[in-house]
Amino acid sequence: MPFTATVLTILPDMFPGPLGHSLAGTALNNGVWGLKTLDIREFASDKHRSVDDTPAGGGPGMVMRADVVGRCVEDAIARQPDVPVIAPTPRGKPLTQQRAKALSEGSGVILLCGRFEGIDERVFDHTFSNGTQIEQVSIGDYVLSGGEMAAMVILDSVVRLLPGVMGAAESESEESFSVDASWDGLLEYPHYTRPREWEGRTIPEVLLSGNHARISAWRRAQAEERTRLWRPDLWEAYEARREASPKGKPRKGRS
Amino acid sequence: MPFTATVLTILPDMFPGPLGHSLAGTALNNGVWGLKTLDIREFASDKHRSVDDTPAGGGPGMVMRADVVGRCVEDAIARQPDVPVIAPTPRGKPLTQQRAKALSEGSGVILLCGRFEGIDERVFDHTFSNGTQIEQVSIGDYVLSGGEMAAMVILDSVVRLLPGVMGAAESESEESFSVDASWDGLLEYPHYTRPREWEGRTIPEVLLSGNHARISAWRRAQAEERTRLWRPDLWEAYEARREASPKGKPRKGRS
Repeated sequence: MPFTATVLTILPDMFPGPLGHSLAGTALNNGVWGLKTLDIREFASDKHRSVDDTPAGGGPGMVMRADVVGRCVEDAIARQPDVPVIAPTPRGKPLTQQRAKALSEGSGVILLCGRFEGIDERVFDHTFSNGTQIEQVSIGDYVLSGGEMAAMVILDSVVRLLPGVMGAAESESEESFSVDASWDGLLEYPHYTRPREWEGRTIPEVLLSGNHARISAWRRAQAEERTRLWRPDLWEAYEARREASPKGKPRKGRS
Repeated sequence: MPFTATVLTILPDMFPGPLGHSLAGTALNNGVWGLKTLDIREFASDKHRSVDDTPAGGGPGMVMRADVVGRCVEDAIARQPDVPVIAPTPRGKPLTQQRAKALSEGSGVILLCGRFEGIDERVFDHTFSNGTQIEQVSIGDYVLSGGEMAAMVILDSVVRLLPGVMGAAESESEESFSVDASWDGLLEYPHYTRPREWEGRTIPEVLLSGNHARISAWRRAQAEERTRLWRPDLWEAYEARREASPKGKPRKGRS
């Protein structure tokens, strides 16, 4: 069985959307991963197929009903009892590259997409029939019009890590936030390619030297410098990990 | 002129994608905002329409050429000289709700989507003909297969804030990360709706009390508690802002 994602949504026509293009799309067409949607409206019990109602205590907007959403989640769990159930929401635990990597090593994921003001809180307190609780995951500190696009982002981050999705030429080994042990948590170093001169700017001399040790040291120094300047939060975490790990203490300029 | 987004990409068929659905899609169809794509390949100068080449200094993957990308950016700037040019990349400054709000108050945005290992660094060092430099923005600490989906996320976060996109019933005023002054930077409080009991769980009594002051105090206390427990980083920033602003010092349980 390939990695399988089940997306619970009131907007199933949004999928696969961008996931049907490029790397993820080719892999989907080749059966490297599978994507299924469940329309939450199918689990409504009234003839209008209502999925939402007004918030208890008042306030703007509508809230998705616990009973309707709960039935939809149970249906998905019956098909895939052994995968995590994730609801994208700005309240959730931030998505990291490590989490994407861990998900890509499992057999799939169920993604519950909220709309309107959100989902009745009891769904998150509930333990489903297989013992699962829903995890809330945030893709960033901003508000989207629903969980669907966040679900796509989570899936794209995971699918590209599945075996056979990226060619050897597209290795993730040195990217920002890659899970490679020694580069872990640094922003990516700058890239250059032909032409050698553009708008009066040349490619840094070291990259044309052919000296692989110097090139590697320069790239690491650049990655460290950028991280320190642009993302002090990541830099602090990187330094803390370096302190903790005796062999993980590379120095700038080492050869 | 409505808010206009120009997306520079080698995958123009990906758009509008999810932005053609729901709130953003309705607003797009109604002319509340405009979306244009420019195919970066159209700006290649060889007969193969190459946009990329091997990285200087070696390493995996391909790098997008400064000359080709630069021409495409100049073309976009000639059409929209007064809007920011943003390249989504995990190296960038994190997207925030405040940034989305600021973008929604402008006349548009140019989004440059990288693919492969990234874009030749000189494009980011360059000052374009209208004096613009490209801003690098990150939607989160994870790697996607390209900038396109990140561009969609940025646009969705912005478009929903444009006047006339959200109905009164979908007000953003109390959401997590909304820009409302007093709730700024707190995670959202929990929502409940009918049925009154589900799987043995009831709606918290206070929400059924009809006492608006008690309900409001309970919601704020919940939002504060969640933020403190789930996102200590946001909580610290929230407390610092509260200290700085004399009138912004609400207490738990105030009525």
